[in-house]
Amino acid sequence: MTKKIYEHEIDDGFEIYVLIKSADVRLAKNGKKFIAFTFQDRSGQIDGKYWDAKEEDIKQFVPGQVVVVTGKRELYQNNPQLRISKLRLAREGEPNSPELYMESAPLKSEEMVEEVSQILFEITSAPINRIVRHILKKYQVEFFEYPAAKRHHHAFVGGLGYHTVSILRLAKTVLENYPAVNRSLLYGGIILHDIGKTIELSGSMSTEYTLKGNLIGHIVLIDEEITKACGLLNIDEDNEEVILLKHIVLAHHGKMEFGSPVVPHLLEAEIIHHLDNLDASINMIDTALLRTTPGTFGERIFGLENRTFYKPKFTQPTEE
Amino acid sequence: MTKKIYEHEIDDGFEIYVLIKSADVRLAKNGKKFIAFTFQDRSGQIDGKYWDAKEEDIKQFVPGQVVVVTGKRELYQNNPQLRISKLRLAREGEPNSPELYMESAPLKSEEMVEEVSQILFEITSAPINRIVRHILKKYQVEFFEYPAAKRHHHAFVGGLGYHTVSILRLAKTVLENYPAVNRSLLYGGIILHDIGKTIELSGSMSTEYTLKGNLIGHIVLIDEEITKACGLLNIDEDNEEVILLKHIVLAHHGKMEFGSPVVPHLLEAEIIHHLDNLDASINMIDTALLRTTPGTFGERIFGLENRTFYKPKFTQPTEE
Amino acid sequence: MTKKIYEHEIDDGFEIYVLIKSADVRLAKNGKKFIAFTFQDRSGQIDGKYWDAKEEDIKQFVPGQVVVVTGKRELYQNNPQLRISKLRLAREGEPNSPELYMESAPLKSEEMVEEVSQILFEITSAPINRIVRHILKKYQVEFFEYPAAKRHHHAFVGGLGYHTVSILRLAKTVLENYPAVNRSLLYGGIILHDIGKTIELSGSMSTEYTLKGNLIGHIVLIDEEITKACGLLNIDEDNEEVILLKHIVLAHHGKMEFGSPVVPHLLEAEIIHHLDNLDASINMIDTALLRTTPGTFGERIFGLENRTFYKPKFTQPTEE
Amino acid sequence: MTKKIYEHEIDDGFEIYVLIKSADVRLAKNGKKFIAFTFQDRSGQIDGKYWDAKEEDIKQFVPGQVVVVTGKRELYQNNPQLRISKLRLAREGEPNSPELYMESAPLKSEEMVEEVSQILFEITSAPINRIVRHILKKYQVEFFEYPAAKRHHHAFVGGLGYHTVSILRLAKTVLENYPAVNRSLLYGGIILHDIGKTIELSGSMSTEYTLKGNLIGHIVLIDEEITKACGLLNIDEDNEEVILLKHIVLAHHGKMEFGSPVVPHLLEAEIIHHLDNLDASINMIDTALLRTTPGTFGERIFGLENRTFYKPKFTQPTEE
Amino acid sequence: MTKKIYEHEIDDGFEIYVLIKSADVRLAKNGKKFIAFTFQDRSGQIDGKYWDAKEEDIKQFVPGQVVVVTGKRELYQNNPQLRISKLRLAREGEPNSPELYMESAPLKSEEMVEEVSQILFEITSAPINRIVRHILKKYQVEFFEYPAAKRHHHAFVGGLGYHTVSILRLAKTVLENYPAVNRSLLYGGIILHDIGKTIELSGSMSTEYTLKGNLIGHIVLIDEEITKACGLLNIDEDNEEVILLKHIVLAHHGKMEFGSPVVPHLLEAEIIHHLDNLDASINMIDTALLRTTPGTFGERIFGLENRTFYKPKFTQPTEE
Amino acid sequence: MTKKIYEHEIDDGFEIYVLIKSADVRLAKNGKKFIAFTFQDRSGQIDGKYWDAKEEDIKQFVPGQVVVVTGKRELYQNNPQLRISKLRLAREGEPNSPELYMESAPLKSEEMVEEVSQILFEITSAPINRIVRHILKKYQVEFFEYPAAKRHHHAFVGGLGYHTVSILRLAKTVLENYPAVNRSLLYGGIILHDIGKTIELSGSMSTEYTLKGNLIGHIVLIDEEITKACGLLNIDEDNEEVILLKHIVLAHHGKMEFGSPVVPHLLEAEIIHHLDNLDASINMIDTALLRTTPGTFGERIFGLENRTFYKPKFTQPTEE
Repeated sequence: MTKKIYEHEIDDGFEIYVLIKSADVRLAKNGKKFIAFTFQDRSGQIDGKYWDAKEEDIKQFVPGQVVVVTGKRELYQNNPQLRISKLRLAREGEPNSPELYMESAPLKSEEMVEEVSQILFEITSAPINRIVRHILKKYQVEFFEYPAAKRHHHAFVGGLGYHTVSILRLAKTVLENYPAVNRSLLYGGIILHDIGKTIELSGSMSTEYTLKGNLIGHIVLIDEEITKACGLLNIDEDNEEVILLKHIVLAHHGKMEFGSPVVPHLLEAEIIHHLDNLDASINMIDTALLRTTPGTFGERIFGLENRTFYKPKFTQPTEE
Repeated sequence: MTKKIYEHEIDDGFEIYVLIKSADVRLAKNGKKFIAFTFQDRSGQIDGKYWDAKEEDIKQFVPGQVVVVTGKRELYQNNPQLRISKLRLAREGEPNSPELYMESAPLKSEEMVEEVSQILFEITSAPINRIVRHILKKYQVEFFEYPAAKRHHHAFVGGLGYHTVSILRLAKTVLENYPAVNRSLLYGGIILHDIGKTIELSGSMSTEYTLKGNLIGHIVLIDEEITKACGLLNIDEDNEEVILLKHIVLAHHGKMEFGSPVVPHLLEAEIIHHLDNLDASINMIDTALLRTTPGTFGERIFGLENRTFYKPKFTQPTEE
Repeated sequence: MTKKIYEHEIDDGFEIYVLIKSADVRLAKNGKKFIAFTFQDRSGQIDGKYWDAKEEDIKQFVPGQVVVVTGKRELYQNNPQLRISKLRLAREGEPNSPELYMESAPLKSEEMVEEVSQILFEITSAPINRIVRHILKKYQVEFFEYPAAKRHHHAFVGGLGYHTVSILRLAKTVLENYPAVNRSLLYGGIILHDIGKTIELSGSMSTEYTLKGNLIGHIVLIDEEITKACGLLNIDEDNEEVILLKHIVLAHHGKMEFGSPVVPHLLEAEIIHHLDNLDASINMIDTALLRTTPGTFGERIFGLENRTFYKPKFTQPTEE
Repeated sequence: MTKKIYEHEIDDGFEIYVLIKSADVRLAKNGKKFIAFTFQDRSGQIDGKYWDAKEEDIKQFVPGQVVVVTGKRELYQNNPQLRISKLRLAREGEPNSPELYMESAPLKSEEMVEEVSQILFEITSAPINRIVRHILKKYQVEFFEYPAAKRHHHAFVGGLGYHTVSILRLAKTVLENYPAVNRSLLYGGIILHDIGKTIELSGSMSTEYTLKGNLIGHIVLIDEEITKACGLLNIDEDNEEVILLKHIVLAHHGKMEFGSPVVPHLLEAEIIHHLDNLDASINMIDTALLRTTPGTFGERIFGLENRTFYKPKFTQPTEE
Repeated sequence: MTKKIYEHEIDDGFEIYVLIKSADVRLAKNGKKFIAFTFQDRSGQIDGKYWDAKEEDIKQFVPGQVVVVTGKRELYQNNPQLRISKLRLAREGEPNSPELYMESAPLKSEEMVEEVSQILFEITSAPINRIVRHILKKYQVEFFEYPAAKRHHHAFVGGLGYHTVSILRLAKTVLENYPAVNRSLLYGGIILHDIGKTIELSGSMSTEYTLKGNLIGHIVLIDEEITKACGLLNIDEDNEEVILLKHIVLAHHGKMEFGSPVVPHLLEAEIIHHLDNLDASINMIDTALLRTTPGTFGERIFGLENRTFYKPKFTQPTEE
Repeated sequence: MTKKIYEHEIDDGFEIYVLIKSADVRLAKNGKKFIAFTFQDRSGQIDGKYWDAKEEDIKQFVPGQVVVVTGKRELYQNNPQLRISKLRLAREGEPNSPELYMESAPLKSEEMVEEVSQILFEITSAPINRIVRHILKKYQVEFFEYPAAKRHHHAFVGGLGYHTVSILRLAKTVLENYPAVNRSLLYGGIILHDIGKTIELSGSMSTEYTLKGNLIGHIVLIDEEITKACGLLNIDEDNEEVILLKHIVLAHHGKMEFGSPVVPHLLEAEIIHHLDNLDASINMIDTALLRTTPGTFGERIFGLENRTFYKPKFTQPTEE
């Protein structure tokens, strides 16, 4: 009973503890209600439908509850799916704390804080350093707790911070290899580029877009934060470093059609756009391959033009 | 000698007073320098090249100077062009004040101020009213003096204000015909939608993009102004009216590929996008047709997918 | 029992009179037939499924019948839906006249006729005036009765005429503000631009595309009508005014990829394209917002790139 | 002196008779006028500039004149160009009849008429046969004399008829191989598909677009002709065969963005679109390769996405 | 009992022998399994669902089995569908050989071999002739047995060879009409252009993409075959004819976005691209029209931008 | 006289040794010939025109010659340009060896060989290791000498090898941070991804595309090399590792419209696509910024959608 969702073989029956991540009540073709669940534990997420849901089911089986599912894992058109035969809430004395089931970043929050803090010392531009520290302090809790996206990539607790840390690591190599790159702009830009998601998204559970997220978007929201920081810290907005930092965050989606109001016109803006894409792509593919059988193609990945990825059968020899 | 550029017939010789709008020094194929001028008077603008320019020519014939040109107007591949045979600065006693030659809005600055002020009374939402008044006051001088664009539409003194006033007039009819439209959002959004151009552009003469204009852009610049206004006026940024006003200015280009970081998700945002387009299109076509012979097609209009427009021979009977 | 569909609260049970607008018989997953209805009354339209339909049900529940539905209104993935528990035909003595339930233009047919007639006097170009009167007379009944589209915008009785009248009203302001615009071309073009829909569509009930609609399309169909009118009225087809009028109707979709065989090359063609878009957009958004709860986003609008629109919570203060 | 333009080696001096196809007077950088000529003889066309043109040169060297050029053929950025050292009009007694220099279809007009006439017998649908005969008769002279385009393909005397005949020949094989294809629609559609170009273009010399060509376009112009033919011949416009014939000509550009107001929804429409493309492509490539040295790439072809085509060195062994 | 699927009227009950082409086991909304079948006989293919499938059903009703279906043919949203009421395997003594039910090319394999062989004699370029013969011999069996695509066009036994033969027939007319075309390149290119599909696809039954098909694709696979043939036949890869032959097969999809790594830069490459498209389009439309009622539009065709095609009511008079 | 091109101030006169990189003879407007040069030394490249060129000039001033230019560096529309007043060949005793002037990779050939060799030991997959070693050996000289492109990025001696080494360095960090990535595929794919350019391009001086380069392209050319290597080394082409290696090189342009016949369906293919882009982008921007004055925007970069890049005025404090 301690095995996780993706540790069970396909089509094996099981009884399993999972957390309800989302629960949509819908109408079945026969006119009865059913609940479309997304469950999760630390091995991943899985969808499952609960038929003929009664009003009390709808009331008790809500996001955030830990439940015991009797059923099995199946494949439906290449997507994993949980077939539910029985469902009940986890009781007192059972492992019913939600934290136990939430996927989270491979690094602990403290580790990420530590790693980012080290980087701050390398931002030698005074205005950039002050602005970054100010904003980071203001949103620190959310920054290391929120996912990096509602669904597409790093959609787990701490995903936003972890995505940032991953890019910072790649950036270190970039700085070594390309001496023309400005360290302050690169590090400062990376730390701030997605921090507006702490305003764009509603939180780390049942994540939704906020009104500001929908109507303003995280790209402009972080620009506004820099504007406000300048006001509070008495930094001149016409300072070249400030303008460049704003440009980097505004341009980081790389193209206007992806929501950047300006395209990159700065070396560091171009680099951050590439590193952001690279890290997000690897994470999406990694996540899909985790659930894919070697020698087959996995599920379609929306964020990568619906491409499917092949999981090789051959593995690299252990390198010791 | 008082006739203006476009009041002379094509290929007629003349001596004429005009203002130098821009003067680019370039290398001719023969290795000598020439000056590529744009001249203007109130009948429009015209390009002309001055060959074999000496250093003193380059020094004295600069933007902002009024000059006397001897030459004629010609057509080169459907574009008007001024052939210069002699060129000298206008002297004392001659009409050498630049203002006399600058195209400007059909309305005087005071008239536009008056018309916009009347509209302010109809913005009954308190936060919108206060924000709009605050920003308008801050940029009032530039707003009624700057052009609406460096080149494409309303590229004349006062063009920015005049473009805004024109849209406000159309908006009045929209409000009458579609009762669901919110007056405060519509009027407030129109007044602010392009006011960031006072920061994006360098001024009303020899207009260029500023660094902020190039790297941040007028769409985000006005969003920043609203953010700062909220801070100064103690208006809560989470106020729905504020979020909607920001959304309108951010979305007014209608599509991401035209530089809006978000697309319209609000009735008033959609309407302003349309009215802005309509007024800019009419102005560009009007300007081109002014220089077009009836019964022919005019010059290509860059801002309208390089289309050319036909100027009919038939005119509508005078309607009295 | 006199409340309309959208006057009932979501999830409240009711018994209600509605008109069957369309009725598609389909196969359910269980192999039995069901009817996918679209019902309507003057508060709007709603879809609903009738399960396990017997042959007699299929025969009697057809478009144009008024029925009594017992059931309730629900939300299914943000779209309103009618859950049917009982269904029967309205009887003698009950309000069973279809007209009572059909959405229709806010103006009566006579009012629209009157308004358009006034405009005709302002078309001072003789050939345009004669052509417009001729075609208007030929299709007058359909013009003021048909919808402006099968589904997307102004999809109600009289929608085609109402859409035209709305644009004419906007055009009046355009003529006041932009003196270069030709009144005869603008008004004539607007009245004719969509009148080919009277041939493209099958009628005002259960509207479908005709064979000519599918294979020729309303844009070319109206061009053909002008051609025929010239023949009957002895107007020279090489007359500039006739060519321009044809151009306007051919170009009114603005871009080739939207079905215009030529793009606008005439000021009036460009303007009509914009006004057409503006009026259609407002109508689509208005219709969607009618069914949207304040503070939320409405259904996706196909004709506007599937965007959703936000309905603000704040309302403008009553202005008296 | 009887060699043609492209029979001379590159860089060899010559004296040669050619026809002036077009002559644009332009301003040189040095302020003097020059004439940008396009000359032609039966080996092809070539551009050449005539510097320091005097007023009398401009008056006498006009399109339609045969001239004697002393000069040589050169290559400028892969494009052939004629360097003019002397230029005079051809005199009495010299070969000064324009017809001697105009490129023309490989078939004589009578041969084409004959070939098309044979095809008419195979159009067994009465309405299609009558409409095609009627229009063909109305525009017969122009049809076999005009080019198929101002510049892109079959831009020679008789090109329009020849393009049509070429497609008819391909169509014959299509009919043999695909029995489901309707002979009357296929042949009728091909004969009419481009005949609107007799109205769209100004003639076979110095070909320009007419006002109708620019503002209505040959696709709709031929639809209008069918409409008028139906009126004159008392053919019901609601006849399915008429609707399909119209659809074919309207859809023959294949995609809306290429100017078809409807896309093909009929087997024969789809086929004609393909055959039209195929024949035009072959003609454009053939023309370019004629001027290309074996083993190199020729000039960019505008109508084929600016691609260049390779002319192989190897030739196929004579097959006898 | 000898009538085929599409020889029965819609909604008529029948008992019929068909072959199972594919059989996907899926989960129904009620949690039970069902089988989504595609059946076929020589009149075409049809989908049908078998509800509440037991494990033994799943085991026995697999692709390649002939079965007896009791049921009827229905229309579901314009697509034909088979409603199954009873299903059993065909027994000994019944017509249970799969070949009897497989759609196949209108020509027998031997006829196609013969027709292609005749063409080989006309390929007079020695290297092209040797390469084509070599590859044809290597893949001969598969070439005349495989479909031309998994689903889109010529998706029947022998479809690949038949598609090739059809294009060769069109090519014959092209060679007659356009003398500049090189016979060896045209014929050699056509024969090889799609032969890589014998490696890309898994076979003629239950056709799937192979790993090489998915990750390398038939366009590059045939290029590799030419490379290997050169090695084995001692043909110099730098031979111009070899390079051109490779270019043709690489460029035959016409545009990069359709998977050609190079676009056509050779007359014969351009022609083959057009003929390939033409033949595939006709086949797709033909197949759809076979199942369409005259006077209506058929199913959407994925390979033709989801267009639907109209089947005319009028037929051409028998021509004798 | 030892200063390099870009070490001189703009508009300062100088006498300078440079290498002729390319020399195009063209016709001036006045009918005389001129030579359009590209010169280079180790500080960069610059264009310059030599007017009124005589035949002997044309003969002696050819690519590969070292010349002495008297003149000055100027700016023409933001692009650097060399104004030539005198030109002669460098003589014996002067520094006339071309190598002295060719831009080259910051690493020596031996260093790159060494760095790549170290990587080879980490490719533990036997077939990949053998294929990579085989191809590397075959093209080793060219690989470390050729540019990575004719013009766009790393267009200098050794650029191809240096581009590869730069990506390998980035890849090392990727392998550390993302444990799921396969080392053999990543390193093998990077080394081979562009090696086909040794066949696609003509060499390191006056680089042009070869016929194979134009008609087959480096992406397919390297796939052919792998195919041939498998034949020679007796490696099964159906080996999964071989298929994946081929897929990586075929997919490395990321999208079909950029010339990849397949899009990435493998984690390592996706990563290499990103790293390739990142390194090329940085190199293009770096090169442009070298010639840009701080506080201004540089020249348009063709390979980056014609964007211009800003060179900041502020520099990062020396970090010691």
